[in-house]
Amino acid sequence: MSQTITTATTVHGTVAPGFEGVREEFAAFVGGEVHDPGAQLAAYHRGELVVDLWGGDSVTGDSLTGVYSATKGAAHLVVALLVQDGVLELDKEVAFYWPEFAAEGKGALTLRELLAHRSGVVGVDSGFSPEEYADEALLAPRLAAQRPFWQPGSGFGYHALVIGALTGEVVRRATGRTIQEIFEERVRVPYSLDLYLGFPEELEPRYRPVLPMLPTPAQQAELDANASSPHSLLGIAFGANGKEPLDVVDFINTRAVRAKGQTSSSGVGNARGLAGMYAVVNTLLEPGTYSEFSRIHSSGRDLVTGELDQTFGLGFQALGQKYRPLGADAIGHSGAAGALALADPRNGVAYAYTRRRMAFPGGAAPENERLIAAVLRAATAR
Amino acid sequence: MSQTITTATTVHGTVAPGFEGVREEFAAFVGGEVHDPGAQLAAYHRGELVVDLWGGDSVTGDSLTGVYSATKGAAHLVVALLVQDGVLELDKEVAFYWPEFAAEGKGALTLRELLAHRSGVVGVDSGFSPEEYADEALLAPRLAAQRPFWQPGSGFGYHALVIGALTGEVVRRATGRTIQEIFEERVRVPYSLDLYLGFPEELEPRYRPVLPMLPTPAQQAELDANASSPHSLLGIAFGANGKEPLDVVDFINTRAVRAKGQTSSSGVGNARGLAGMYAVVNTLLEPGTYSEFSRIHSSGRDLVTGELDQTFGLGFQALGQKYRPLGADAIGHSGAAGALALADPRNGVAYAYTRRRMAFPGGAAPENERLIAAVLRAATAR
Amino acid sequence: MSQTITTATTVHGTVAPGFEGVREEFAAFVGGEVHDPGAQLAAYHRGELVVDLWGGDSVTGDSLTGVYSATKGAAHLVVALLVQDGVLELDKEVAFYWPEFAAEGKGALTLRELLAHRSGVVGVDSGFSPEEYADEALLAPRLAAQRPFWQPGSGFGYHALVIGALTGEVVRRATGRTIQEIFEERVRVPYSLDLYLGFPEELEPRYRPVLPMLPTPAQQAELDANASSPHSLLGIAFGANGKEPLDVVDFINTRAVRAKGQTSSSGVGNARGLAGMYAVVNTLLEPGTYSEFSRIHSSGRDLVTGELDQTFGLGFQALGQKYRPLGADAIGHSGAAGALALADPRNGVAYAYTRRRMAFPGGAAPENERLIAAVLRAATAR
Repeated sequence: MSQTITTATTVHGTVAPGFEGVREEFAAFVGGEVHDPGAQLAAYHRGELVVDLWGGDSVTGDSLTGVYSATKGAAHLVVALLVQDGVLELDKEVAFYWPEFAAEGKGALTLRELLAHRSGVVGVDSGFSPEEYADEALLAPRLAAQRPFWQPGSGFGYHALVIGALTGEVVRRATGRTIQEIFEERVRVPYSLDLYLGFPEELEPRYRPVLPMLPTPAQQAELDANASSPHSLLGIAFGANGKEPLDVVDFINTRAVRAKGQTSSSGVGNARGLAGMYAVVNTLLEPGTYSEFSRIHSSGRDLVTGELDQTFGLGFQALGQKYRPLGADAIGHSGAAGALALADPRNGVAYAYTRRRMAFPGGAAPENERLIAAVLRAATAR
Repeated sequence: MSQTITTATTVHGTVAPGFEGVREEFAAFVGGEVHDPGAQLAAYHRGELVVDLWGGDSVTGDSLTGVYSATKGAAHLVVALLVQDGVLELDKEVAFYWPEFAAEGKGALTLRELLAHRSGVVGVDSGFSPEEYADEALLAPRLAAQRPFWQPGSGFGYHALVIGALTGEVVRRATGRTIQEIFEERVRVPYSLDLYLGFPEELEPRYRPVLPMLPTPAQQAELDANASSPHSLLGIAFGANGKEPLDVVDFINTRAVRAKGQTSSSGVGNARGLAGMYAVVNTLLEPGTYSEFSRIHSSGRDLVTGELDQTFGLGFQALGQKYRPLGADAIGHSGAAGALALADPRNGVAYAYTRRRMAFPGGAAPENERLIAAVLRAATAR
Repeated sequence: MSQTITTATTVHGTVAPGFEGVREEFAAFVGGEVHDPGAQLAAYHRGELVVDLWGGDSVTGDSLTGVYSATKGAAHLVVALLVQDGVLELDKEVAFYWPEFAAEGKGALTLRELLAHRSGVVGVDSGFSPEEYADEALLAPRLAAQRPFWQPGSGFGYHALVIGALTGEVVRRATGRTIQEIFEERVRVPYSLDLYLGFPEELEPRYRPVLPMLPTPAQQAELDANASSPHSLLGIAFGANGKEPLDVVDFINTRAVRAKGQTSSSGVGNARGLAGMYAVVNTLLEPGTYSEFSRIHSSGRDLVTGELDQTFGLGFQALGQKYRPLGADAIGHSGAAGALALADPRNGVAYAYTRRRMAFPGGAAPENERLIAAVLRAATAR
């Protein structure tokens, strides 16, 4: 690492020689935004931290924020470890581990299909309260009893707020422990990662609240035009069908939610922590395990989001289909505020981007595309 | 119900308080059309008829016309009742009930797959005559002997003119009766519905012939540019590959066709009848049965129509994917002239729209989108 | 055949009465191109050669060039013959014939799935050299040992350069012979076809080298913008992930490559030869065999190319989905330089188009659309 940087556009941090273009791309983006994104960008190349940048109000390289669904990457790294250990078997039925899940015609669904977002249980008919969403011990039994929203296994859709409760219950039944406990023990502590599934009280001073989206009038009109029923698949999967629709900003900005660290959406971390985790994925996972989890299991039209380019491996998004500079077996996960974190082992890259300010339109923020391209250009030129 | 309405744009009928916006939307549409659509709109909210409107030449709330594929909803309500009764089992092979269907590699196809438009038997190599299309007793044996047009089960496509002949033959083998007979006995008569699978002679005075499409020059150019071979999947499924292409307007305007009431496309009804049927779907079907038939079984690219947003449950279209204001488990079916009828139990709504004048470009007419939105706005505001 | 033609735009050859419009369409295209395409067009109608045209530098009706993936049609006609003979069974596992293929979780994949481009083995992690690509005896064992790039059977993607090595190894294990040998004996020689899987030295004087693509600046910008990682699925499948990316022009212009006649991409032929082969497909294959190979097995989003309208039967592309004038069971295959060859038995047509100059953007050149339309207009008017 070299070259400490402070730009007029409030970009700080360092890049390794050859990665100056990444700093320029990041600075151009941060400087060009109307609303301060409060962003962090970190990347590893062959195990070396080569990009460590941040910019925006109250954000430093050390500050932490809600990473939303990027949490799913951490949770499913644990599931992959347990499959590698032989504790879980992908082609066993979910109900083998969790008999109650067999209710309402879900008995034949395999763990592999569950991990590929094919169960059809994206929520429950009458919705969840925020307290339930925060606590997987409350989510799991209600999900087990639910009729599936599509024929299990026949298609796929993003289980946005509940995939971790479903896979986590399988883990708990098989091991007696939670994903959060195993992540802490086998991943976070050994690698000193700033990425928490269950955020410790003593680190709260470093937490920076997520800030609400500030759409332009045109963007707001687009959001309004695309509004779906609270009882649509999208509404059910994203918590709109309860007594009150889930406010995801309030949710993660609630201390009790961060304390539980629900494995679908309630992790707290920063870009260094996320990139650091993906930098050790291929240390933790043997090639056979990595291959199994990274290979595409679901692609085509996502029944929940309607996206045509969503592609899932097991637990992770298979990102090589969406981002052209990445290798075929790149895995990772986006997060609601705009975050994206991934491993691209064929190019020796781990990448993470976070932001405090919710980006339009949700999911991986559009700027990830050029940031990834800049990182990959530098890495492949080395 | 209140407020009898007669607008300058020939819209008649009544709406319940709170549904005035629906009348305005309907009137704006009817008044804005170059060619009189001859339209009816009816909706129920929580069992109450809240919208009962019509407009156009010779059309009243009582008049009847050909509802084409909206017929499929009535037919498959019967299939759902028989599954509920335990007379039919979804995961049994079609050939279990109908041994001849096993010909040409179709022996493994299940009733569930057949109902999800996955059989691949969308027509026959040498085409059907109009007389054959009118009579399912003639269609069924030829379909049973046909080689499938795609690998059975591997994909889906709209079995536009034959799905009822296929599922109807299963019903006949299992019960000794026709779908038409069972519909009459268990659905139409008990609820006094103006919706007929086999149209009685004595009601003919109320029949209003379907009128041909009158495309604009630009629309005609689009139709010509998209013309497919009579021997394409589209041509085979829509009757273009016989000695003469099927003229669907002449077809339903033929008394003998209406008399048979073929269950894919030859029902006669009006908006009140269709909406009335969907208003009692959740009375007739237990929650488990409704869930099974409404959940998505086929989605993605339709091999027959090429549509990317077609989504089938069992027998019914799963409409929650296409119309954003609807709940996830809304079911119904469109019809060639532009009709659409559906149940949206999560919002307590049943909706039906018919028109005499064939709409461009076929299938559910575009105006259904704003009419549905208006009905749902009013219903959810109550 | 009648009317010898020599136009100012260098179009030569003959058309049968009624096919003059095809000559005009071909001449208009050839005359309108900035860069001489060096094209041939041939078509049969009900067994008669009705179109036999060519135009461009050094190209005659007799000249031969690399037809790239159009080769796959020839190779899979052999596979179809062996299935028809009962030598191969579609629903047997690939590993039944080729035990080594069971490695890395591929043991359950059937021959049917392999032929439908569903294996997931589109290349190998470290890439192939041009020498390996030229020789299926070198490709096959490396492919057998490879981890699949998606979950076998769960989706499909174009196995661009290796499908023939995979299916060919099955043929070799089952028969002790190569696809090339069987094609020569059962197809090429009996019908005197100018289409070679293994190009004889003595015919080299008739070979016209493939010429590189000459994109406009706008086209080049589009190619650059869409560039993918060498390690993406696209890169792996098209030979970009080896020590040096495969140059497909140099490849086929190498004598040793043509001599081997690799069955995915290294055939040499002309339009007459390709059309002649498709003109006898329904002589060689019984209706049941043809139906099995032509019916759609894979459709939707192609995981390798990202195309949404790619549709595969078994070994062949199912072209009725892409070209509207064709019948539902039209089969054939495109080739990288822009070639396309096909059989459309419902309309009694066999069609083939070749070009020396690589067309933008790769795959079946856009002009095939209007050439097919012209041929079908003439054929159906007869």
